[in-house]
This record gives sequence, structure tokens and C-alpha cells, in this order.
Amino acid sequence: MTDRNAADGPTGDDLAWETLDASTAYSCDGFDVVNQSVRLPDGTESEFDYLSESEAVVVLPFTPDGDVVVIDEWRQAVDRVNRGLPAGSIEPEDDDPVAAAHRELVEETGHEASVVDHLTSVEPANGFADSYFHYFVAHGCEPTAEQRLDHNESIRVETTTFDELVEDVRTGDLQDGRSAFAVLHYALFEDGSSQR
Amino acid sequence: MTDRNAADGPTGDDLAWETLDASTAYSCDGFDVVNQSVRLPDGTESEFDYLSESEAVVVLPFTPDGDVVVIDEWRQAVDRVNRGLPAGSIEPEDDDPVAAAHRELVEETGHEASVVDHLTSVEPANGFADSYFHYFVAHGCEPTAEQRLDHNESIRVETTTFDELVEDVRTGDLQDGRSAFAVLHYALFEDGSSQR
Repeated sequence: MTDRNAADGPTGDDLAWETLDASTAYSCDGFDVVNQSVRLPDGTESEFDYLSESEAVVVLPFTPDGDVVVIDEWRQAVDRVNRGLPAGSIEPEDDDPVAAAHRELVEETGHEASVVDHLTSVEPANGFADSYFHYFVAHGCEPTAEQRLDHNESIRVETTTFDELVEDVRTGDLQDGRSAFAVLHYALFEDGSSQR
Repeated sequence: MTDRNAADGPTGDDLAWETLDASTAYSCDGFDVVNQSVRLPDGTESEFDYLSESEAVVVLPFTPDGDVVVIDEWRQAVDRVNRGLPAGSIEPEDDDPVAAAHRELVEETGHEASVVDHLTSVEPANGFADSYFHYFVAHGCEPTAEQRLDHNESIRVETTTFDELVEDVRTGDLQDGRSAFAVLHYALFEDGSSQR
């Protein structure tokens, strides 16, 4: 995985901000808000706030038949049931993101994968959050365990076809951008059968 | 654009949470944090916090030659220069997301588009935020104005090829997931020339 703190191509000298002070301004179960005093490139001082959370994994899980295991989950932030892929924060007990991908797949869907491969890692919203999503594809996923949901997870497990997911991204019916990104990435770079 | 509050396929009855109370727990320049008291499907009461912000636009801007206008921007939340696409919040003066796309393109890059088309709209991180990104492709973009940056924007304008952007998403060098999503969506569904 790449060093996300390396400047992305160009050197950042003349664009960089200087951090003068930082503190946790708000803290809750899922994230912190960090408040910073900063000096902008023109020398003026300002404030900046961002959401800070653990790195997370997103898993695109295929069954041995080539179907995809998806979850319908209540998403309180948008007040609706969301169809998407298993995903969750990397926990202290996870040795690495791969271990987290295996664990989240079991916990949220009751499926175990025979193999999990890294697809890519991106920052979904780096204008206001330090979130970092590690994407994986899981093959050979079969139901071998019970769901072990966190106390506040409301999830139903379903299967669908990959082609249907691609079509739902195209039409906008799959509104979960985190999951839609995995579908697009896999369709374009990994799925030899889908020359659309 | 679809009704994002409609249940996504299945009815949400048995998964839905009940909101008992809600208040703004933290407020800053870019977003609010909303704290809610909720009742989970099993009847237990709990707390939930999420980040609330304005809807935003992301623009994939092509020049008449078919190159893409990109920006290198300091992103304080991840402490680095980020290569990405022009993007920003929809402002009260914008009649609709299309108007916001035209405005952000001019403000951040000094380019004006001859036509702007809606690609799709997604929630990038609906586990912890109500963010909603409206994606547009802009054609015929030419430099006709000066940048008009907000006081805390540190941006350099560049051009690159679309193929290079696709390759940077494939390799993971384009770490900005918000921009990478636009590149993948356009490559898979709109770009007839790129049967990769």
C-alpha cells in the first residue's frame, strides 16, 4: 500500500499549511472531531476542523457461484435502508487490513472467504475527514457461521449478481458510494468478462 | 435524481431505527455533528452521532482537446497535497447542482464549460455522514477567468490525460476517492473509447 502522506506527485511546499495547534473538540462512539489552528500559505492564521476515525475495510464478496453477498443495513445518518457491501473499522485485534476484511465478512454476513485480495485504498472524503478505506475482493465465500453483529447494527444478508450491482451503479440506484466504488473498480480492472 | 430517502429496494420496517431526540452537538465552518437518541429494532435505546454537511458537486472537466483539468490542493485532514477534481459545497445562491458545478469549476480552475452533464449522485460515507456528492462531466472547458478561491483554499491548476487518471486509479496513486469515483464511473459507462 502506498505512503498516503507522500505528496501526490508535485511537492507541496507552496501549498502546504502549517499546523500551530490541535485538540480533540468532540468525541463520540464512531469518531473524533479535531480542531486545529493553522497558518495558511499567505501567512494568515485560521481554524480547521476535521473528522478523525479508524481506517476501515470494504469487502466485495463473491460466492463460489460468482454471486455477490450484499447487506441491507439501516443507515441512521441518511435515515434509510442501504444496500451495500460488508465494511467496518479496523480493530486493535486485527493484525492487518486483510484480517479485518475476513473478520467483518464473518461478523456481518456469516460467510467465510477462501481468499481475500487487496484491490486499492482511497480516502473517500479528504476535504473533511481522514477516513481511509481499504478495498478487498473475497472469493469462495460460503455461509459457515452466524452473524455476530455489533449492538447497533441492523443488517439483513442477501445475494445478487455482479452484473446487477454494476447496473445499479450505472442507474444510481446503488446510492452507497463506498460500495459503488468497489463495484466500479472491480468491473473496470479485474473482471475480464465485463467489457461494457 | 433519485429520492435518496426511499428505501433502497427492500422495505426497511424491521431494520429501521426510531429517532427519539436530536441536537447539534458541535458546529464548525465546514459541518455540524448531530447527536441523536435512538431506539434500535430490538427496543434498546442508544446514542448515534453523525457529521452533517451541505450537498456537494464534483466535476470531471474536459478541455476541447480531451484533456482533463485537475487541481493539486492542500488537504489538511490528511496532511498532504491531493491531486483531484474541482469540487465543493452547493451554496444558497446556486439554483441547482448544475449551477454549483459551473460555479465551482470557474472558482477553482478559472475554466468555463460549454456543457455540464449529470453523471450520478452518491453518498460517499453514509456510515458516519449525510454527505451527498453530485457528479458531473463538463465538456469544452477553456480558461476564461481568474481563479476565485475561498480564503482557505490552496490550489494549483494542471491538466492531464484521462488515460493517465484511469491508470492512477488502477495503481492507487490517485488516493482521492471522491475524484477516483468520477474517473471510474466515466471510464466504465461514458467513455466509448476505453474498452480496457
